[in-house]
Amino acid sequence: MPVAVIVLAAGQGTRMNSELPKVLHPLASAPLLAHALAAARGLDPERTILVTGHGGEAVAAAARHIDPDIRIVRQEEQLGTAHAVRQAEPELAGFDGDVIVLYADTPLVRPETLQAMLDARATGAAVVVLGFEAADPGGYGRLVTRDGALEAIVEAKEATPDELAIRFCNSGLMAADAATLVSLLAEVGNDNAKGEFYLTDIVALARARGLAAAAIACPEAETLGVNSRADLAAAEAAFQSRARAEALENGTTLTDPSTVWFALDTHVGRDVTIGQNVVFGPEVTVESGVTIHAFCHLEGCHVSHGAKIGPFARLRPGAEIAEDVHIGNFVEIKNAIVEEGAKANHLTYIGDARIGAGANIGAGTITCNYDGVFKHQTDIGARAFIGSNSALVAPVRIGAGALVAAGSVITQDVPADALAVARGKQETRPGLAKRLMENLRALKKKATN
Amino acid sequence: MPVAVIVLAAGQGTRMNSELPKVLHPLASAPLLAHALAAARGLDPERTILVTGHGGEAVAAAARHIDPDIRIVRQEEQLGTAHAVRQAEPELAGFDGDVIVLYADTPLVRPETLQAMLDARATGAAVVVLGFEAADPGGYGRLVTRDGALEAIVEAKEATPDELAIRFCNSGLMAADAATLVSLLAEVGNDNAKGEFYLTDIVALARARGLAAAAIACPEAETLGVNSRADLAAAEAAFQSRARAEALENGTTLTDPSTVWFALDTHVGRDVTIGQNVVFGPEVTVESGVTIHAFCHLEGCHVSHGAKIGPFARLRPGAEIAEDVHIGNFVEIKNAIVEEGAKANHLTYIGDARIGAGANIGAGTITCNYDGVFKHQTDIGARAFIGSNSALVAPVRIGAGALVAAGSVITQDVPADALAVARGKQETRPGLAKRLMENLRALKKKATN
Amino acid sequence: MPVAVIVLAAGQGTRMNSELPKVLHPLASAPLLAHALAAARGLDPERTILVTGHGGEAVAAAARHIDPDIRIVRQEEQLGTAHAVRQAEPELAGFDGDVIVLYADTPLVRPETLQAMLDARATGAAVVVLGFEAADPGGYGRLVTRDGALEAIVEAKEATPDELAIRFCNSGLMAADAATLVSLLAEVGNDNAKGEFYLTDIVALARARGLAAAAIACPEAETLGVNSRADLAAAEAAFQSRARAEALENGTTLTDPSTVWFALDTHVGRDVTIGQNVVFGPEVTVESGVTIHAFCHLEGCHVSHGAKIGPFARLRPGAEIAEDVHIGNFVEIKNAIVEEGAKANHLTYIGDARIGAGANIGAGTITCNYDGVFKHQTDIGARAFIGSNSALVAPVRIGAGALVAAGSVITQDVPADALAVARGKQETRPGLAKRLMENLRALKKKATN
Repeated sequence: MPVAVIVLAAGQGTRMNSELPKVLHPLASAPLLAHALAAARGLDPERTILVTGHGGEAVAAAARHIDPDIRIVRQEEQLGTAHAVRQAEPELAGFDGDVIVLYADTPLVRPETLQAMLDARATGAAVVVLGFEAADPGGYGRLVTRDGALEAIVEAKEATPDELAIRFCNSGLMAADAATLVSLLAEVGNDNAKGEFYLTDIVALARARGLAAAAIACPEAETLGVNSRADLAAAEAAFQSRARAEALENGTTLTDPSTVWFALDTHVGRDVTIGQNVVFGPEVTVESGVTIHAFCHLEGCHVSHGAKIGPFARLRPGAEIAEDVHIGNFVEIKNAIVEEGAKANHLTYIGDARIGAGANIGAGTITCNYDGVFKHQTDIGARAFIGSNSALVAPVRIGAGALVAAGSVITQDVPADALAVARGKQETRPGLAKRLMENLRALKKKATN
Repeated sequence: MPVAVIVLAAGQGTRMNSELPKVLHPLASAPLLAHALAAARGLDPERTILVTGHGGEAVAAAARHIDPDIRIVRQEEQLGTAHAVRQAEPELAGFDGDVIVLYADTPLVRPETLQAMLDARATGAAVVVLGFEAADPGGYGRLVTRDGALEAIVEAKEATPDELAIRFCNSGLMAADAATLVSLLAEVGNDNAKGEFYLTDIVALARARGLAAAAIACPEAETLGVNSRADLAAAEAAFQSRARAEALENGTTLTDPSTVWFALDTHVGRDVTIGQNVVFGPEVTVESGVTIHAFCHLEGCHVSHGAKIGPFARLRPGAEIAEDVHIGNFVEIKNAIVEEGAKANHLTYIGDARIGAGANIGAGTITCNYDGVFKHQTDIGARAFIGSNSALVAPVRIGAGALVAAGSVITQDVPADALAVARGKQETRPGLAKRLMENLRALKKKATN
Repeated sequence: MPVAVIVLAAGQGTRMNSELPKVLHPLASAPLLAHALAAARGLDPERTILVTGHGGEAVAAAARHIDPDIRIVRQEEQLGTAHAVRQAEPELAGFDGDVIVLYADTPLVRPETLQAMLDARATGAAVVVLGFEAADPGGYGRLVTRDGALEAIVEAKEATPDELAIRFCNSGLMAADAATLVSLLAEVGNDNAKGEFYLTDIVALARARGLAAAAIACPEAETLGVNSRADLAAAEAAFQSRARAEALENGTTLTDPSTVWFALDTHVGRDVTIGQNVVFGPEVTVESGVTIHAFCHLEGCHVSHGAKIGPFARLRPGAEIAEDVHIGNFVEIKNAIVEEGAKANHLTYIGDARIGAGANIGAGTITCNYDGVFKHQTDIGARAFIGSNSALVAPVRIGAGALVAAGSVITQDVPADALAVARGKQETRPGLAKRLMENLRALKKKATN
């Protein structure tokens, strides 16, 4: 049965106290809405429809960046969840299959859970609701079930004491076949305190038609909704907790799991060791056998087998770290290929460059890649040795096996196996330091008297 | 009614196991006693009196630094809390109003709570005690109340089983009008196991006179007393927990709130994003729309709207960061004004300087501000471009729009729009690297045979 | 009574999902097995015997590194704990005393606990078992005791409901005198589901002979066994929690204890202040009165009284930091002696060097210690002043009181009190920056049209 996913992303998020639309706030280095979209992708849907509202253009742009095929509709007025879903109806034209409704601000639901909803659909329930056992059911709608079937969703304020005692609560996520969904939505009214059209009502409408409904259970953590920055921090903590447990399970050592932060799309291989305080931004892949020491920050990079990174290293987008490379402390690598076994261990900036295999980049080396207008490339050959505190003024090529003397400013290409020196000649003036310092101290004495 | 605050700070703090007086140990980047003083300031007191004892001179100096108008008295012998308060009596001369007694080692009490104590005074209670519902009442004095009035404070070891079952406990903080307080204190005796004069006794003395007493409740966390380094760490955690929640509420994003540490006086605007592991030392103000990436350390600085800081950046006292400035990784800024839109993105030390608007400071730039005796100023004009790995030997001025070639050591002023180069000429010797490395390797081979 | 310790280290650790033998995974910067060996050392044993199996050679090498006198035996097939202990019998030849059996994957047991087991032996029990009150007894063997004597160990699946209700469980650690142990082991059979020889069975065998057994209790945390990376992370957390509490108790300030990581062998003195996010690798000693600011990484180093380290500093093996030295941000020190009062505050690499007392190392200084084959020494005299952004090309000596001008590349020795300059002469070309930038911008405009 083909699947369509509708993701509701129109809410204002007033409690975020922010200019940024709520669903664009970052969670695990991705916009909030990317999480629901990633869960949806797990169902291999035929079409995905996003309903935008507040901050619609920015939200639409972000969504298209994540999924170029996404269909986007606009809910001009926020008249309730059923109303929001109805905006998606034109994009369901010609679709004959199951529809599942997600929320862009409910980021932690897992694909397995959504699949379980579809499985329940397949076994006969016209409408499937995702529920959870609430630690504190409070104001949540209660799911009244009998023999596995969902009989009703009762709002907390209309519930009898017996119903209030139910802890199985409504998450708001729903699945139904498209035709039934559209037909039920047409009947949803807004005769309630807020005058809104609630998606929840389709359960009662389906039951009134004699259709079966079902409720699937998932852990409460999966249904965590983000309405404030505190919620966002809680969702981040829950995401990280899950990602850390998975990493440990997959054979990664995390010295202190609570101080490693993964992104939604981080990939880490087996027998990788990650020290304390390592931050993964988006688009990082780490192969097996890598060691990442404490205090590292990685984004948009690939680290190959056996490499050693940090402590205090920063890999920025475009850093391609080959096997057995060492990147040490206070080193930044950006848009650069560092080939097998090369080393840049101390206080170095490598940007827009290729570092050949086995090359040694001395402490304090800087690639001068920017002239104020253009960025230029530095190319360092295999086994080249760049003496410490050198500046390589790009565009420049250092040949294989070449040697740059410490403290040089290299502005012209250096052929393979050549030695280049570009520094001042040392002059030493006996006794002068003593006289200078005596003068300075005398000046100071005068000044303070 | 005017208010006077007495802060008791005479205790030794033996369990701190430290040379430093207990109340000077830092909490949220301020001495412990600064917290009670800050809470006191919330009452806009007419006078604040500090009672010192152990380490009195150092404590007095720190207190005067926080509040130049503070009145300081000395308790020569530690004969109990009532005795301590009596030392403050001379400083109450001529004062007609309410007195509130705080403890320098009880840092988390909030101004709202103190105000509630004064409000209770205003509604007729001669003596007001601050109490808390103890999770584990243990040895705390129990507050016996009836119809909202405080009848007695019963020490745990003298309590009946019924009284022991009370969880409403005495924090030690008290409020009373000055005349009553002085008159009650004169009656406090020391006929007890330790031979000390206890402030607590004024409640019974007031009751014996037929005066009304009242007890105000606050959360137990507010009354946390610091007696050991473990307590201090617990107080720090409690302070941070409160500060993080407030920041989230005010529209700050904290990716992982548990890894952001605020100081007592940190100000952070709306829509500020703070990554993992950011430490705020004292006197930091961050305007709205700022992003502070992971691993940053800020003290005594001001960061304006839209600036981007870090990761791995350090802003030290006197760093004035204007709008839309970028300060990147492994960059230190000290006593420097960085004007609008300027950038210093990599491995740079800027000290005692002005960086003009839109200037670009290349990777590895160092302001050489110290000659061993004096500090000197570097002035960089608007839109200047400082090539990477340059050293600017202060005092020195780089004019607006000027360009310093990469790797230069600049010792003389550079006029506006001029280009300055100060580096060695490159010499390239073909094949020499190969011969040198062969010789070195041969030497090594010999050495290891 | 002499003591022998047998440490079982033969297990495969399949659930670690790793190429590395389980007992070599690091815990608190030491291999897992080092922890049981350290606890054993607390008993001053006459001999220590390690039983290896999976990854035996690597495990043996690591064990000999920790304790050169360790006796190592091999268990070729893993036929159970009793079988493992029997492999140690040849190494018990001629030994007449108590034997205690530990597990290399049970790292948190304390010497005091082991001593309590030996004390119980001394008071008459032939066999002593270490037990713990389990929060969730689940599948653990139950210790059935009467009047303080251990009557039986009952496996969970063979237990009666009454026995299942017992929460006092078997940790597996045992003590017995050598002769009894050997004689009991000879009787252990493998008539059980897994066909293994269980050490646990010696209790029943002893009881059958009419010998007394006893059970000693310890906190459950001490018996935590490591079978997965999640267990390893839990053990690390437990170790750190204990180490942090001890540090606080001993008069160390930890601003946020949860972000300081100690190694098994870290020594920290009184009135040391440690900021947030400080990582101690192996072999670090910190004397009293030291301040270590946030974001520091220390290994194999010694920091003397009054020194100030960080933030963002890295001390590597061989860093000897004398009294009142300052090591600042983005500074790396390796194999170097930094003498009293010297300062290296910014963006510096000091490797293979001596820095004399009171010397000032400017920002961006690099010791160029490596020529591609050999490491060379840099020697800086007392009170020398190294101007910022200098490169010192080793081997090189800077005399006492000498001055190196900022931005110099020093290749020759500088005598005491001399001034050395080695940099290019500044040329300033009026108006050239303006023309160059105009040209670049014009090129860009062309390129983008």
